[in-house]
Amino acid sequence: MSSGPAASWPPWRERLHEIVFRSDTRSGRLFDLGLLIAILASVLAVMLESVPEIRAVHAETLSTAEWSFTLLFTAEYALRLLCVRSPARYAMSFFGLIDLLGILPTYLALFVPGAQALMTIRLLRMMRIFRILQLSAYVGESAILSRALRASRPKIVVFVVFVLSVVCSVGALMYVVEGPEHGFTSIPVAIYWAIVTLTTVGYGDITPETGIGRLCASAVMILGYGVLAVPTGIVTTELAFASRLRRTTRVCPGCASEDHEDDALHCKRCGAKL
Amino acid sequence: MSSGPAASWPPWRERLHEIVFRSDTRSGRLFDLGLLIAILASVLAVMLESVPEIRAVHAETLSTAEWSFTLLFTAEYALRLLCVRSPARYAMSFFGLIDLLGILPTYLALFVPGAQALMTIRLLRMMRIFRILQLSAYVGESAILSRALRASRPKIVVFVVFVLSVVCSVGALMYVVEGPEHGFTSIPVAIYWAIVTLTTVGYGDITPETGIGRLCASAVMILGYGVLAVPTGIVTTELAFASRLRRTTRVCPGCASEDHEDDALHCKRCGAKL
Amino acid sequence: MSSGPAASWPPWRERLHEIVFRSDTRSGRLFDLGLLIAILASVLAVMLESVPEIRAVHAETLSTAEWSFTLLFTAEYALRLLCVRSPARYAMSFFGLIDLLGILPTYLALFVPGAQALMTIRLLRMMRIFRILQLSAYVGESAILSRALRASRPKIVVFVVFVLSVVCSVGALMYVVEGPEHGFTSIPVAIYWAIVTLTTVGYGDITPETGIGRLCASAVMILGYGVLAVPTGIVTTELAFASRLRRTTRVCPGCASEDHEDDALHCKRCGAKL
Amino acid sequence: MSSGPAASWPPWRERLHEIVFRSDTRSGRLFDLGLLIAILASVLAVMLESVPEIRAVHAETLSTAEWSFTLLFTAEYALRLLCVRSPARYAMSFFGLIDLLGILPTYLALFVPGAQALMTIRLLRMMRIFRILQLSAYVGESAILSRALRASRPKIVVFVVFVLSVVCSVGALMYVVEGPEHGFTSIPVAIYWAIVTLTTVGYGDITPETGIGRLCASAVMILGYGVLAVPTGIVTTELAFASRLRRTTRVCPGCASEDHEDDALHCKRCGAKL
Repeated sequence: MSSGPAASWPPWRERLHEIVFRSDTRSGRLFDLGLLIAILASVLAVMLESVPEIRAVHAETLSTAEWSFTLLFTAEYALRLLCVRSPARYAMSFFGLIDLLGILPTYLALFVPGAQALMTIRLLRMMRIFRILQLSAYVGESAILSRALRASRPKIVVFVVFVLSVVCSVGALMYVVEGPEHGFTSIPVAIYWAIVTLTTVGYGDITPETGIGRLCASAVMILGYGVLAVPTGIVTTELAFASRLRRTTRVCPGCASEDHEDDALHCKRCGAKL
Repeated sequence: MSSGPAASWPPWRERLHEIVFRSDTRSGRLFDLGLLIAILASVLAVMLESVPEIRAVHAETLSTAEWSFTLLFTAEYALRLLCVRSPARYAMSFFGLIDLLGILPTYLALFVPGAQALMTIRLLRMMRIFRILQLSAYVGESAILSRALRASRPKIVVFVVFVLSVVCSVGALMYVVEGPEHGFTSIPVAIYWAIVTLTTVGYGDITPETGIGRLCASAVMILGYGVLAVPTGIVTTELAFASRLRRTTRVCPGCASEDHEDDALHCKRCGAKL
Repeated sequence: MSSGPAASWPPWRERLHEIVFRSDTRSGRLFDLGLLIAILASVLAVMLESVPEIRAVHAETLSTAEWSFTLLFTAEYALRLLCVRSPARYAMSFFGLIDLLGILPTYLALFVPGAQALMTIRLLRMMRIFRILQLSAYVGESAILSRALRASRPKIVVFVVFVLSVVCSVGALMYVVEGPEHGFTSIPVAIYWAIVTLTTVGYGDITPETGIGRLCASAVMILGYGVLAVPTGIVTTELAFASRLRRTTRVCPGCASEDHEDDALHCKRCGAKL
Repeated sequence: MSSGPAASWPPWRERLHEIVFRSDTRSGRLFDLGLLIAILASVLAVMLESVPEIRAVHAETLSTAEWSFTLLFTAEYALRLLCVRSPARYAMSFFGLIDLLGILPTYLALFVPGAQALMTIRLLRMMRIFRILQLSAYVGESAILSRALRASRPKIVVFVVFVLSVVCSVGALMYVVEGPEHGFTSIPVAIYWAIVTLTTVGYGDITPETGIGRLCASAVMILGYGVLAVPTGIVTTELAFASRLRRTTRVCPGCASEDHEDDALHCKRCGAKL
């Protein structure tokens, strides 16, 4: 964004942009660090306020802190809109939406009581931490992870549609077999039970009690066992592929072979310098 | 099916076949879309009817909706039988059986109360959604997933027989150790407990209470830990293999065989250069 | 065993050996099939006897069945000892021990009441099923699975020692934090809780109730998440390696390359016949 | 340590170092074996003391045993400090800290009742067992496991930060949806529930009871399903890579570098022929 022509762009905005958006300058890094501390403190305040024992004593203090943080973040959001070249594009970007979602709940809580708990969504802003620390290794790993997950998406969608069909059928079957008198009060509740069982969470708030019901549940669990293996297999395969991809971006100038390690200086096949 | 000689086949049947079975024409896609909406609506109706609060108020409406959908799907099933060239083969195919199973429960419920809950099996018909969307990527991914699962089958069968043997032995052992006074009322119940534990579902409706019982249970859990790894390993390995296979869509010029590996220079069947 | 010199070995023993031990002749297969049915029936009888409602009605019948099966299996065990060339080696082999363990519980039950439940160990004899069906594919898959598990053993041992140390430390910590008044009545009980939690079984019979206890438990769960990945990774890696090994048993006579697929007729590199 | 100049180092210290620190001599191995037995016995004593029934009878004996073991380990720690060349470096090393942590709790228990339960941390000293047994295979496997885990670290850190953000947001959402009247008494408690659910532990001490709450919980569980796959994929990929690395213990004749891949013909660092 800052690489465009700066002719019609006042220098104070350029300076502001540097502080607010970039983290490779000293002032920018200080700004981001302060922001991170403010985010963590504000989330902590929301959490503490929800604990009855603490709210009884420090209600006033926490409410003040909450409003101060919200006003601070509102000012920061306005600053960001002011100094970016295309405010609309920023507002619709991933970080722009997260920034907005972190402010709204407090204002919403004026009308809907309890909405301020949603402010913990501010935690997602912590993702910026990787940018500040400038840990290129971590950014690289993030890229591999997200590339693998993106490549897995079509397989995962097929898989989730299949799992949802199975879960609904199993739920309806258990509703017929066990019936409302054993806790399966309706098909949606039975589907909830099926999801709890198939994902191996197993709360135990609803459990089969008849012999046939337990037989069906056992079949579902052993099925779930095999089913659990599928997403793991998908992600592992794509992750291995994504890791390998990163290694094959260098081609030997001597023999055109690929698959050289990160730290290789010479081609492992012909010995030419890479 | 539609590529055969159409001489003795009246054109209206050909037209009907196009609408009902194909999804690469405009009318066919509209038909499928309408069908999908009807399926979703009918499943929703069945689910809502099972919730006591809703049934108390809207019983009449939901019953009418249920019968309307069933008659609609019966007509659709008849249409499919009518316009397909080999009705017997369709009736015995995967989608043919699913289509039939989606209709039967309502008629069955005339004799067996509660059977209509089984209608949620209609959800399996949602599998058609991939055909409508014509997402070739998704179809390709389905093929990889099912090829990997088919290739894993022998290993999975060996594994399931082994797990069933272990589960029965552990169940009988716990029945002896804990006894009926701690909830292990019979060997089948103890086997149910063993399955719940080994799959890490862990409802907690039956739990060991004696010291020796807890020691045995701990051993089973740590064993289950390792056991859980086996199906995941199987599926991952086959998936990696199936994914690698897909990446090589090269056809041999000599014998037209496919399935050559990435690094193959010669056809593995006839030896011709690729 | 049958390939040794048969000079001093009477022909009726040779014939008996063929029936009892081999499954590639018609009589041998019939013997094995009858045996399998007897095993399944005897296990079913033991299970049914443990259900109070059934025992109340059919106690006599089931007890007779149990003794008949045990005498039958005792006779079979004697036959096996009689017709094998080295009885001691058979008695100490995997299948020999399993065969013995399947008989003992009934006799043991004369002295220790309830011991007959251990007879379900007979189910392990079902492993013979793969030999009868002569499914070479299944035998091959068993071999791959067991080779992979054998290769994983040193890594798994290191891992289990590590997990046991962690579980004991965590258990002691939770005993201090939560104390006997919240269900952690002693360190062994707390260790049982730690195993239930780390393996993600989570019965819920013992749960942390203080704030610090829940914080510790959360840390253990997230740790367990990562720990769960290790055995899976180990088995998957070894399985992939074992699968690959099977593929590399054929070497091209032309260019000495390996890694040919199962169904390859020609070398994929030089085109020579394999 | 023992390869340095021994001029100013008295021979008795050298001899002591051999016994206490090395395990490739007969006296050293005997010392280590005695130590291991003492560790196991002391941990067993602590565990038994925590069981109310046993403490009621053997309180005196167990207390004496505890103090004897602690004094023994204190003497051993002093010996180690005495005969090592750089006591400070030993005291700060992994094993040095573990050795210290195994002694402190008993002394701490003089001031803080209950602290002696922390003595089970002594179990971590069991890690020495691999050194005594001199099972080079096991040590090699440990190295592979720890190299794979070290290589996975950046990816795991990214993943844990992501999971913590998700868990906090989900917890806050459920606190709003379910509220204190269904067990979600505060946001920290709701976050504890989210962790219990996402890791598929599922105690069942806190469960959603409203329809919307169960819908949200179902979404979290299915999400957790996919999330569970990520660390497994990471560890498996790194483990496969670390295993492959080990198989190539070739050293370059030109620059003595290691870590060359299986199919390398030239050194990747200096280009010399391998």
